[in-house]
Amino acid sequence: MQTLLLGPDDVAEHADLPAVIDAVESAFAADARGDTIMPAKSYIDLPKYNGDFRSMPAYVHAGEWDAAAVKWVNVHPDNPADHGLPTVLGTLIYSDPETAFPLAVMDGTVLTRLRTGAAAAVATDHLAVPDADSLGLVGAGTQSYTQLEAIASVRDVETVVIADRDAKKQQAFVDHFSDRFEVRAGSIEDAAGCDVLSTITPVESPIVDRSWLGERTHVNAIGADAAGKHEHDDRTLLDAKLVIDDYEQCTHSGEINVPWSEGVLSDGDIYGELGSIVAGEIPGREPEDGLTVFDSTGLAIQDVAAAHVAYQGAQIADEGTAFSLVGTETP
Amino acid sequence: MQTLLLGPDDVAEHADLPAVIDAVESAFAADARGDTIMPAKSYIDLPKYNGDFRSMPAYVHAGEWDAAAVKWVNVHPDNPADHGLPTVLGTLIYSDPETAFPLAVMDGTVLTRLRTGAAAAVATDHLAVPDADSLGLVGAGTQSYTQLEAIASVRDVETVVIADRDAKKQQAFVDHFSDRFEVRAGSIEDAAGCDVLSTITPVESPIVDRSWLGERTHVNAIGADAAGKHEHDDRTLLDAKLVIDDYEQCTHSGEINVPWSEGVLSDGDIYGELGSIVAGEIPGREPEDGLTVFDSTGLAIQDVAAAHVAYQGAQIADEGTAFSLVGTETP
Repeated sequence: MQTLLLGPDDVAEHADLPAVIDAVESAFAADARGDTIMPAKSYIDLPKYNGDFRSMPAYVHAGEWDAAAVKWVNVHPDNPADHGLPTVLGTLIYSDPETAFPLAVMDGTVLTRLRTGAAAAVATDHLAVPDADSLGLVGAGTQSYTQLEAIASVRDVETVVIADRDAKKQQAFVDHFSDRFEVRAGSIEDAAGCDVLSTITPVESPIVDRSWLGERTHVNAIGADAAGKHEHDDRTLLDAKLVIDDYEQCTHSGEINVPWSEGVLSDGDIYGELGSIVAGEIPGREPEDGLTVFDSTGLAIQDVAAAHVAYQGAQIADEGTAFSLVGTETP
Repeated sequence: MQTLLLGPDDVAEHADLPAVIDAVESAFAADARGDTIMPAKSYIDLPKYNGDFRSMPAYVHAGEWDAAAVKWVNVHPDNPADHGLPTVLGTLIYSDPETAFPLAVMDGTVLTRLRTGAAAAVATDHLAVPDADSLGLVGAGTQSYTQLEAIASVRDVETVVIADRDAKKQQAFVDHFSDRFEVRAGSIEDAAGCDVLSTITPVESPIVDRSWLGERTHVNAIGADAAGKHEHDDRTLLDAKLVIDDYEQCTHSGEINVPWSEGVLSDGDIYGELGSIVAGEIPGREPEDGLTVFDSTGLAIQDVAAAHVAYQGAQIADEGTAFSLVGTETP
């Protein structure tokens, strides 16, 4: 038996984004049903390298399929300047849960981007106004490209406003999408007035004022992924129908971690988890709702779902590189 | 940048056992010095498949080298009968801790066998009588082969007794080693009388009677790796200088887990961790010592050490298969 190797181009080609969105939605529903197993992330902090490793194992039984995987991923902020490497590098082992055979080993970097975009799309689908047609983005890094692609697959996005301190990155984003959307560079305030807003920055002091948001804007708060990170005005979080991906992760490292740990925001201010909405246990947007916020930290079950799509896609296309990675002789 | 893929044959060829023993010894010493990071294993239990997955991340700074890795491994006892696959299948991602780049992805099955044999060799070196020349083995599975190879590299083993209920396995072992050792099939009692005894069975009721052991026998208790497993007479554990690999793991899933959880054996009966002996903090065997026991559960730091040797060996030999597994473009 051989293991299928999928590099970043393979993952990009075979993890079709609409299919990833569906799979991630199924994984959230499975989580609400109790059909997932997701141990807490394990961290290895390496202050001497200003970096850390995280191992993220999970099992998902989504009904039609089930799978187990571990993603081994890091955050090394000095990588770009010191080593010409990305801050985040991910590798994922995707296994058959029945035998534990490693069906695939794949790039986890593209995969992480896809599953993060997919979660925002699922949240947007359940929380944004149905006729949302404008999308604001704060932060013009690689993640913003996937946000637009993913959200455009659940709403008829026509207008896009991209905000970033780096005018070159902003322009690159405009150039990339100008043939498909009415896309323009703008301020954070401009972006915040759209029907949907995704923020994808690593800031530790809020940069989006409550007063800039539209009356019924849906916000995907993507940037915060560690204690101390915080992109939004506390008043936004308190005024909104506030949806989280996972209670443990969000209170420790999500957008709400700072106001929650300071006691500014309490459990009573959290409406619920996205999985509960997807599973139909609690409603998503209701007619009387104004602001909505989705606090996304990124769950290992999303990685399993995205990896499932990448693996199935590559299998069907008969692509990827087969390799005899583990011994299968029985003693 | 490319990731080096090492299949089981590559690992077997390049993870030279004496070098693995040295590296594992260094890792134990690093652990005692506080130069390792080893989060608890994460388990994913899948009763519907009678199996489980374990993710084992760790970082080791051994002085001359440092490395981080995660091993994704399982125990699926129905695999051999139902799927023609081994019960245990391992895959390991080996990373540069400075950048987190995955330097190698390798077979974790052969690697596990090597690092387990290496730990027994390190323990034997510090705990067996210096002139030990006989080795008893209970259980003739693949692990027993590595036990003999490893222990023979720290003691001048001349006589070997192999015990197993399966006469065919026993004979295969004899045939494999008869040109290098005086090796014979025998009972558990015969094996227990040797200077060194390694037990490698998955039993849940003790099979080695205290009275069968030699006066100064050193025992490597390898088999127990889950709650409820137990190979040795409680009196053996109580009478011996009892050394463990890790307190948390041994009390939960090692040879001592049953008597410890029943209160038959308490913390005061544990002499110390192998790392403390290797680091010179406490003595190994002393002239007045009789029985010694090493309770081995298998630590993630051993995997990192063995993977380091396999990767370095393959690099030097310019072997293994390079593959572009993760994207290295900076945004």
